[in-house]
Amino acid sequence: MSGPASKGLVRALRQAKRPSIPRARQPRCLRLAYEPVRSFTSTPRRRDDTSEPKHNVKYTTDMYPNLKRDPKYSEITPEHVQFFKSTLGDDAAVIDGVTKDAVDDLEAFNSDWMRKYRGHTKLVLRPKSTEEVSKVLKYCNENKLAVVPQGGNSGLVGGSVPVFDEIVISLGRMNKIRSFDDISGILVVDGGVILEVADNFLAEHNHLFPLDLGAKGSCHIGGNVATNAGGLRLLRYGSLHGNVLGLEAVLPDGTIVDDLTTLRKNNTGYDLKQLFIGGEGTIGIITGVSVFCPQRPKAINVAYFGLESFEKVQKAFKEAKIQLGEILSAFELMDSQSQGFVHTVTGNKRPLEGDHPFYCLIETSGSNTEHDNEKLEKFLEYVMGEEIVSDGVLAQDESQARALWGWREGITEALGHFGGTYKYDLSIPIQDLYKLVEETRERLTSKGLVGDDDSYPALGVVGYGHMGDSNLHLNIPVRRYAKEVEEAIEPWVYEWIQKRNGSISAEHGLGIAKKKYIGYSRSETMIKLMKQIKNLYDPNGIMNPYKYI
Amino acid sequence: MSGPASKGLVRALRQAKRPSIPRARQPRCLRLAYEPVRSFTSTPRRRDDTSEPKHNVKYTTDMYPNLKRDPKYSEITPEHVQFFKSTLGDDAAVIDGVTKDAVDDLEAFNSDWMRKYRGHTKLVLRPKSTEEVSKVLKYCNENKLAVVPQGGNSGLVGGSVPVFDEIVISLGRMNKIRSFDDISGILVVDGGVILEVADNFLAEHNHLFPLDLGAKGSCHIGGNVATNAGGLRLLRYGSLHGNVLGLEAVLPDGTIVDDLTTLRKNNTGYDLKQLFIGGEGTIGIITGVSVFCPQRPKAINVAYFGLESFEKVQKAFKEAKIQLGEILSAFELMDSQSQGFVHTVTGNKRPLEGDHPFYCLIETSGSNTEHDNEKLEKFLEYVMGEEIVSDGVLAQDESQARALWGWREGITEALGHFGGTYKYDLSIPIQDLYKLVEETRERLTSKGLVGDDDSYPALGVVGYGHMGDSNLHLNIPVRRYAKEVEEAIEPWVYEWIQKRNGSISAEHGLGIAKKKYIGYSRSETMIKLMKQIKNLYDPNGIMNPYKYI
Repeated sequence: MSGPASKGLVRALRQAKRPSIPRARQPRCLRLAYEPVRSFTSTPRRRDDTSEPKHNVKYTTDMYPNLKRDPKYSEITPEHVQFFKSTLGDDAAVIDGVTKDAVDDLEAFNSDWMRKYRGHTKLVLRPKSTEEVSKVLKYCNENKLAVVPQGGNSGLVGGSVPVFDEIVISLGRMNKIRSFDDISGILVVDGGVILEVADNFLAEHNHLFPLDLGAKGSCHIGGNVATNAGGLRLLRYGSLHGNVLGLEAVLPDGTIVDDLTTLRKNNTGYDLKQLFIGGEGTIGIITGVSVFCPQRPKAINVAYFGLESFEKVQKAFKEAKIQLGEILSAFELMDSQSQGFVHTVTGNKRPLEGDHPFYCLIETSGSNTEHDNEKLEKFLEYVMGEEIVSDGVLAQDESQARALWGWREGITEALGHFGGTYKYDLSIPIQDLYKLVEETRERLTSKGLVGDDDSYPALGVVGYGHMGDSNLHLNIPVRRYAKEVEEAIEPWVYEWIQKRNGSISAEHGLGIAKKKYIGYSRSETMIKLMKQIKNLYDPNGIMNPYKYI
Repeated sequence: MSGPASKGLVRALRQAKRPSIPRARQPRCLRLAYEPVRSFTSTPRRRDDTSEPKHNVKYTTDMYPNLKRDPKYSEITPEHVQFFKSTLGDDAAVIDGVTKDAVDDLEAFNSDWMRKYRGHTKLVLRPKSTEEVSKVLKYCNENKLAVVPQGGNSGLVGGSVPVFDEIVISLGRMNKIRSFDDISGILVVDGGVILEVADNFLAEHNHLFPLDLGAKGSCHIGGNVATNAGGLRLLRYGSLHGNVLGLEAVLPDGTIVDDLTTLRKNNTGYDLKQLFIGGEGTIGIITGVSVFCPQRPKAINVAYFGLESFEKVQKAFKEAKIQLGEILSAFELMDSQSQGFVHTVTGNKRPLEGDHPFYCLIETSGSNTEHDNEKLEKFLEYVMGEEIVSDGVLAQDESQARALWGWREGITEALGHFGGTYKYDLSIPIQDLYKLVEETRERLTSKGLVGDDDSYPALGVVGYGHMGDSNLHLNIPVRRYAKEVEEAIEPWVYEWIQKRNGSISAEHGLGIAKKKYIGYSRSETMIKLMKQIKNLYDPNGIMNPYKYI
């Protein structure tokens, strides 16, 4: 299966070894076999982006008609609003749709960036300090007013928008970088600091935020921590449970959890902050984060391969771990269908000639360009020589690297182009990772639900994801949301996951979308223990209701 | 300050660059400037080791005379013993000092390896399965019998031995490696598996346990997790909060927390297992652990330097992070005094000529020997050229690397040689890390407590530790434990730490030794929240009483 582009790669490799070219003067990356036509970003588009496909955004309450507003929560009165105005003391701090008409201003807080979930809030609070968060939460708790903490609102499971009239507490104005120490690499920020802002700041100090994801331009670090975001750097730098060193959070009763330590090691009692990491705002609001940041890599290489089978993908991954070791920073999987959709929607020229059943994107990040190139070349020679990989290209500069990443990061957007997408974010033991995509495809095909013309609701069944973390994104792009597609997939897909001890939500969390499926990934005992924790911290249940567990 | 050994290093570096020697045929490490006389291990000696300094081991109850047995706990009766015998159904499972004399057999479970803490237990249970642990714990809970979970009993704060007559539940017979997947690198073990056994098993599969510490030959993985052990690989691989993927634990009421997932990502609810990591056996017993293990590095280099000042140590650390980046796996600090004691006690020839105020040990671990050597050489040239480092040597093979490590790992043993050691395991912001040692030295000297002859209780004030983690071990070797030394240090040292927002226990935990000092590192709010968790899981308080918080 080695086509012309493959020969190009081999030739490039051969050139790279000509003894007459001193290594130090070589270009940073090997020559790319194609010129990218245009690049694109995967950062979620903002609500005011006019190119956003226009769906008719239904209220979440219409999508979940069985969900009833819990009458234990008070209705917001003008007196409540008056308290918040006097406490926050600032016009910009309260968006008041209770005593006046503020529908347009509230809309951005009521619906998520995907325009998939939409609530009915009439009040948004925008505190500027931890003390202010404490005061308003305590008041809400005493008055049984339900709340939703909101960061950049870039979640995928509806966790950050209200369902009924919950008060939105937006962290957007708590956006200060509090401190950074460039010897230890420890950064302390407000919960509302945008991830990209922090990472740009760190870049100036030769450090890196240990988390990266498509939504970095809008998501908040507090929200990242609250949802235990995984993203693109987990393979290399590990999870937030390891990298977050300290937290400041506010409990419903107003208690400020002051655990904002800047120490790498601190064995003095239960590590309570961990409950807030991935707690999705159901037991408190994260107002400050202390995080360990690694040295920024000097060299980044990106390669993109075509492979014949999932067995070969696994072999390539194993070999990458061995040969690239400490510099391997991403190993992403994309199937043929996913790349087809990106090609169709963007019109971009494909990185490789021909079609391959599987594609992988490998990124290395290290402290020495020459060494990294050498490791990658050796790896490439091996996987090409052993016919593990059929074909491949290497980015030769940053814009080409970005373009290759576009073939991975652009999938979500491409799939959403046709109407909608059924999205499943799953952890599966690596051997079985792709089997689910194949079985789902067979299942929908045999039920006559997937096809090329408009009579079929689904356009295809697509698999991609963070292979290095055993994290599959199973996506079904549809022309229209159709009951029969949903019924064919659910709960079948969750039962499939349960049988293999996988996770029904690898990195996106539970929110409202996965709340009812947690039993497929957690035992009754675990759920009981989780509810115990919820009741301990939030006995009135005011925090982010109707979601999570 | 560059003596002959330094010239040797420079010469070795120069040789390494001779173009006539092809890089690939070079020895793995540069030539070491000396031949180590003998090497030694830092693994805690077992109780039956006859070379162990013989202290008269006092009962903990004598050391802490204010501690009274809580009358809420039942006394163990022959009927209780009968239940355990019939439940565990195996002679070796119950060491019964209640109905017969078993003092000798019990002694190993009553006192710790340092012979510093000693309890009065008359009953040791040695279950073989999680279900057995569940049955005995449930019974203990219902009968108000206090228990102490015990792993390898290699802790440093008395957390793993009883104080009064608490029943010891030893995990020693739960020692099976349950599974390992060499594509994902995920290992699942019983809580009682010895760390070194797991690491040796992983070595056969080219993987590495992401934790290493002196006690590896005896400590249990369950105990490591229960104490959130830090150790030697944290700088490179991060903490157990990030590396432990799943846990199986038993709560006092017999509930089995079945969270033994083997997934790298699983965002389905509160991450409850984190409470058991560092929980020191106070809310449950860890019976199974699932851990993410990295690829075993192919190349390991060890270098040992002398430096003029702590400012230069900081510069060297910063430069090591930049230049060695992803291959830096240890950056250890040892002061002049610590190395003097090791020299005196072992008689080993010093790695460097002359004396330097500070020494550092750097280890690199990577996937490519040649690249690692090159990075290290470049780093060495730089720090020597800039006069950041005064002198240094590099190990040329594994045994020399081990010998260099001996100068770091042998400190504890060397200091213990003279009678006893006051030990403080502290996290301090890196800039102030060594200031504490200097101020303690001044303080004890001005009080006439430290000196060369037998009239002084203390022999010196020594500082060393995991510089890379900002973790200082402040040690005061004494000829005899003396009230006036203790009074001069405590609570002064804790106040010093508190002022700098450090931690009074970086990696050793609280146990009985630090229980009363937690307030210096944690606020009242945090302690209150921790007690809430303790009460939630262990309302009868049977788990590891008299310790922790």
